[in-house]
Order: sequence, then structure tokens, then C-alpha cells
Amino acid sequence: MNIVDIIIKKRNKKELNEEEIKYFIKGYCNEEIKDYQASSFLMACFINGLNDDETYYLTKAIIESGETLNLEDIDGITVDKHSTGGVGDKTSLVLVPLLASLDVKVLKMSGRGLGHTGGTIDKLDSIPEFKTELKKEQFLKQVNEIGCCLVSQSKEIALADKKLYALRDVTGTIDNISLIASSIMSKKIALNTDIICLDVKVGNGAFFKDLKTAIKASELMIKIGNRFNKKVSAVISSMDQPLGNAIGNSLEVNEAIDTLRGNGPKDLEETCIELAYQILKQTNKYDIKNLKEIIKTNLHNNKAYNKFIELVEHQNGKLPLPINKNLIKTNITSNTEGYIYQINTYELGKALVELGGGRKYKEQEINYDVGMIVKLKINDYVKKGDTILEVYSTSPLSKDFKNNLLSLFTIKNTKNHKLKNIYKVL
Amino acid sequence: MNIVDIIIKKRNKKELNEEEIKYFIKGYCNEEIKDYQASSFLMACFINGLNDDETYYLTKAIIESGETLNLEDIDGITVDKHSTGGVGDKTSLVLVPLLASLDVKVLKMSGRGLGHTGGTIDKLDSIPEFKTELKKEQFLKQVNEIGCCLVSQSKEIALADKKLYALRDVTGTIDNISLIASSIMSKKIALNTDIICLDVKVGNGAFFKDLKTAIKASELMIKIGNRFNKKVSAVISSMDQPLGNAIGNSLEVNEAIDTLRGNGPKDLEETCIELAYQILKQTNKYDIKNLKEIIKTNLHNNKAYNKFIELVEHQNGKLPLPINKNLIKTNITSNTEGYIYQINTYELGKALVELGGGRKYKEQEINYDVGMIVKLKINDYVKKGDTILEVYSTSPLSKDFKNNLLSLFTIKNTKNHKLKNIYKVL
Repeated sequence: MNIVDIIIKKRNKKELNEEEIKYFIKGYCNEEIKDYQASSFLMACFINGLNDDETYYLTKAIIESGETLNLEDIDGITVDKHSTGGVGDKTSLVLVPLLASLDVKVLKMSGRGLGHTGGTIDKLDSIPEFKTELKKEQFLKQVNEIGCCLVSQSKEIALADKKLYALRDVTGTIDNISLIASSIMSKKIALNTDIICLDVKVGNGAFFKDLKTAIKASELMIKIGNRFNKKVSAVISSMDQPLGNAIGNSLEVNEAIDTLRGNGPKDLEETCIELAYQILKQTNKYDIKNLKEIIKTNLHNNKAYNKFIELVEHQNGKLPLPINKNLIKTNITSNTEGYIYQINTYELGKALVELGGGRKYKEQEINYDVGMIVKLKINDYVKKGDTILEVYSTSPLSKDFKNNLLSLFTIKNTKNHKLKNIYKVL
Repeated sequence: MNIVDIIIKKRNKKELNEEEIKYFIKGYCNEEIKDYQASSFLMACFINGLNDDETYYLTKAIIESGETLNLEDIDGITVDKHSTGGVGDKTSLVLVPLLASLDVKVLKMSGRGLGHTGGTIDKLDSIPEFKTELKKEQFLKQVNEIGCCLVSQSKEIALADKKLYALRDVTGTIDNISLIASSIMSKKIALNTDIICLDVKVGNGAFFKDLKTAIKASELMIKIGNRFNKKVSAVISSMDQPLGNAIGNSLEVNEAIDTLRGNGPKDLEETCIELAYQILKQTNKYDIKNLKEIIKTNLHNNKAYNKFIELVEHQNGKLPLPINKNLIKTNITSNTEGYIYQINTYELGKALVELGGGRKYKEQEINYDVGMIVKLKINDYVKKGDTILEVYSTSPLSKDFKNNLLSLFTIKNTKNHKLKNIYKVL
């Protein structure tokens, strides 16, 4: 076999077989296949597409490039969730202890933020001394003991994915659903949990801009999961505005804690309950009729909160978060009246990067405390002079920056009737 | 500007403007744009295509990446020819002195062979002490003095092309007509001759397998040349069998000499006369009615031959070629009777590589004397036991190799009525 022949085959719109895809992944990992050949191949895959079989083979090959977890020693039903990413998405911080409080074992590996989207590991890093880098034996032991862990993505899992993703990022080959699906699912399936729930975000702050693409990607990921005998569901939820109100690492941790104590924003609570419901439904442990109530109860009786505290303590973290007295608070106020009709969520995510709370490049140091609180969300009524957004920064904001932030909120005299929090469950 | 945005634009089937294409070529040459980005971009160009404007801009940017010749000091009409390559193609060796004997100035830069096709520079290297690497001042002086030169492609001409071609070769992005046309035409136009004639080969031993593609590529190259105010014509000729009878470097030089003395194979003579005719027609120096006769005369009155001798002497070469007594001659004989109907020309070219007369990789040393003489060509009648092919090798041929060579000749009881030597002139 020869990589140039494989590239040409896909370039000519032919279907690749399992051996060819395996040859590519193996050769790329051991550097016999060069970056410039891999990127040419990925572009051919991007434009000409991969069918369901090819996407499955690619996922399989990526899984086989790394380690897979053996969860035999974990006592109980193991579950995992994945979000396709967005702005203000602190779902994992709530969902992981919430599920653990409901008698399933949650094994959650997360990543750091890059570009306009945040990452759970950065949020956890805002908790003093919290350890996200645990050894396999350590986190498996913790899952058995307290029911959950929240750790960094292991480098040994789906080895090829990291290398492929870094290459796709700089060669214009990111947003193809087969490449995305194989990247996400390889990492999920290598963890070997019984149940996987995908939180697929859709909207102007998400990877998938329209519902159709989000549904297509969800269906593809579910199909792949099923071929590996995993129970997979997907919740397609809105990223046309930030989830909850807080954007920024420590602000988001505090909002997650509020939610775990029953005082969170409505949309965040609803999303977490829906995701927990989809997962727990598949365990057959609960009566489906009362399941949403049962879940909600644990957000209001401190059970989920106590589980979070347990998790933080097990991973060496110190709560409450210290208050950063050096931050400057700026209110962005409306100069008009009406309903918030639209929020440019992508640009809000980029604004966090500008404040220093997110990364432009991988090695960048970030400030955990800067951020924003969205005071009014879509379909809220705003009067002239009302604060739409609170900004916490390390230096005063320029007039341009403030004007730009204000311009991200579109105000109209009608409500946006298209908006939903959760669009579809698959 | 940003290369990832440019890649994505072409990936999404959008038209690129001149600045974007220039940015790519400039950035790739100065290594700000990496190989893996260039290959991803080239694959997007390959699959989604470049229109005439984009192909022109690409050609222009490649020309501007290197040096262009100033031919002001050359006295007379300057001409150049280019063959898209094939097996047994020794046209340049005949055409260059032939044209120079007919009062035009021929500036010809050539390359080495790679893969199944030969290269003029390798053929010239089989002439003892022949110098192909001349300095610009030297070869321009020679063209003024004797009317022609046959030298190696200058590294300074169309700098980006070399880098792009090497990358395309290993990333499955060779055979796209826009990429081919810009590669060929950038080198031709940078030389700045008044007239360019393209010898576009079509058939199973050529780059272009079918007439339709060859015509499309020819038309595109003519259009590009015209936008640079060059007179460009194209002769589409057959590569469904080797041109002439000799395949192998010194064998081909001897066949070219025979042709220059009026004793060459008919197809080779016809092709050379047609190419010379297309070029000389555009000089308005000759009466078109008698022009083919005039050209043919110079192949029979020693004028073209004497010009070749002059050229070889000017470039330090020693003729006649020495006879290599260590070669083993093997006859491949027919085991059946009928007409030669088809010749697998590509595999004959590869067989020369196997004999050591061509290159598998760029730095490979070659043997100039090994080769083959095709004794019977398409539509010749062959009887059982007749020699179809003579092979000159450094060691005895294996039975498999001989059987394989025989299998390259398809014998049928009817003639191949589709075959022509010259299909079309544009």
C-alpha cells in the first residue's frame, strides 16, 4: 500500500476500505506518512466526503492508535458526556456530580479552551490546587469511591486524534462532519463507558451553525457509537446565546456551584436535567415518569452539590474561590429600548479571549478571573440605561471595546420566536 | 491575509483573486506557508478547480517568484518548444538544430527524466563531456552565435514551480490541467521567447490519456500564453506507442542523429516537421505553401545535422558516441501472428527504468547505454518468431521480465484504425 495511491483514490471520489484508512492512521502516527500528505488526504476527505463505513473505519483506526480503558473493575453503570463546545458552557461541572449523585459512575475527560470556546479543564484550573492530571489508576479508583472524576484528556487515548486535530486546525479541514464525528467518538469510545450522551450545540456561538447540520452530525455519531455497541444519545441545544449568564473561568465555576445548589440560570438547569435524563433513562434504574423530578430534586437538596464538593476535595481543590480584588467592573448599558433579539455569541467568546480569559494559541497563559456576566438574554426586555453586560477586566476598557460589546446585542421591538433552549433529542 | 482563510475559500468552491494567489506563492517560497498548508490548498484547487483567471494568476505568481530572461540582445526571432513527455521522445534533439538551421533563434531548457518518461538532459548526458549546465551569459551568447542551445532548466526560472512540483508529486496533486498548465507555461513565459510551440502527447504512455483532456489542456496553455502576449501553438501527437524506435538515452541520441541525416523513423520525422512548421509559420519568414518542403530539405541536405554538430561542439560534447561492448542484446520474439494492435507504452517506459536507464527517485544514477529498440510498431504485421523488441541490458534478462515485455504488445488479426501520429493542431 502507498499513501499517494490512497490520496488519489479519495481525490477521485472512490470509497476507501478499512485497510487503507488503517494504513493512513498508522503511517501518520509513526511519521512514515508526512504532514503534507496527511493534509492533502484530509482535504480530499473533506471535499469528497467519507461515507458511514469510512467514518466508522476512521474512528476505529484512531481508537486503535492509542490506549483504551478497561472499566471492568468499576462497579456499576459507567457513563460519559461530551459537548461540542460553546460560550459559557459549564454543563460538565454540574452534570458530572449530578449524575454521580444518582448512582451512575461518571468518567469525564475534558480539554482546554481554544479560540472562542471555553474548556472545562481551564474552568477547573481556576479552583486553587485542583488537580486535573490524574494517573489512570488514580482516577479509576476515585470513580469507584465517589462515583465521578473530572480529569484532563489522557494523551494515551486516541493518540492520532491530537495530531490530526492540530493539523486540521492549520490546513482548513476542521468543519467536516465525518472528521468531527470520528474525532469526538474515537475519544469517547476509547474510554469504554456503557452510555454516552452528546450535547450538540447549535447556533452562532457553536461549531454547527444550523439545526440540519447538527442533526446530521448527531445521527452520524450515534450510528458510529452503536457500531461499537455503545448506547449513545444526543441533545441538540442552543448556542445562539451563552449558556447561563457567566462567561469566564472562575465566574463559570461559581455559576455551576449556584446551579448545583438550586439557584442556577434556568437554561443551564434545563440543559443539565435533559442530559442527565437521557443518560439515566438508558440505565433502566429509574421510573421514567418521575425521572426528571428525581434529577431536579438532587439539584435542590444539596446531593449534587455535596458530590461536587467531594469531587473537588478528592482532586485536591480548595473552595470557595478566592475573590480577586484587582478586577475592574464595567457595565455595558443599553442606549435603546426593546427586546434582546439576537446575541453574537461567537464574538462574546472572542471578547473573553481579548480580556485574557481565553487562548489565541495553545501555550498561552490565561487569567482565570476576568470575564462577563450577561445580565439580559434573548427575549428579555431592556430599557435605555439598563445594564446588558457586566465586564470584569484587569485594565479599563477602551471606548471601542465597549461599543463593540454593545453591538453584539441586537435589540428589536419584537421577541425572537424562533429561539428554543433545547431543539431536539436523538 | 491568512493562508487558512484562502484554503477555506477554495475548499468552499469560491474564486480566488490575484492577491490571494500571489500571497500563497510568495508565502510558500519564503516558507511562511508550510508544506502541509500548501498541499491542503493544492488538493482544494485540484478538486474544486481553478478557472482561467485563477490559472493565469497562478502562472503569473510562479513567474514572478523567479527570474525572467531578457532576450533584447538576441538578434532575431526567438522560439521555444515544450513536450509534455513520453517514451522515446527525442524530438528536441532534432527540432532544436533543425529550427536553428532555418534562421530562428532557439532557446531550449530541458529537464531530466523521472518515472516512465525520459528527459532531454539525460539523453545529452550520454554524449561524452557534453555540458548542459551553462551560465546565462554563456548560453545567450551561444544562441546569438550559432542560433541554438540545449541546456538544463535554470533553477532561477519560475522558482516556485520546482518546490510546488516536488510537493504535488508526493501528495496526489499532479494531474490537474490548471496546475499542469501553470507549471509548464510559467517556465516557458519566463524565458521570454517570441514563439512557443507545445508538443502535447496523448495516449497510454503520456500524461494525458485521452484526446479531450489533451485538447482542453492545450487550449488552456494557449490562452495563458496569449495573455502574456506570446504566440503559442500546440501539436497534439500520439504517445500510444514510443516515438521512433529507440528507447534509452544513447540509443535515442543515435536515432536523433539518423533523423537529422534524413534516415530517421517516419513518425519522428513527421512530428519534428509539424512542430517546426507551426513555429516557422508564425515568423512570417517563409511562404507557407512550400514551408514543409523547406523544412524537410534541411533534414536531408545535412544542414540540420551540421547545426547539431555545431551545437554539440559548442557545448563541449564529443561525437560519435562510444560503443558499449559490455551490453547484452536480447531479442523478444513473437509467439503468434497478426498485426501489432496496441503497445503498453507506459510499461515500456517503466521497463527502461528497470534496466537502469531511468530514475525511480531523483538522485538515482542511471546507465546511459541500456535500452530497447522497438522493431515493429502498431499496424505492422508480425509472424511467429519475428523479433518485436531488442533489449540492451547489463545483465541477462529473467524469463519473467522477457514475458512481461512481450505482453506489452497486443497482437490482433485486424489493424488499429484509430491510431494517428498527429491528432490535432491548435
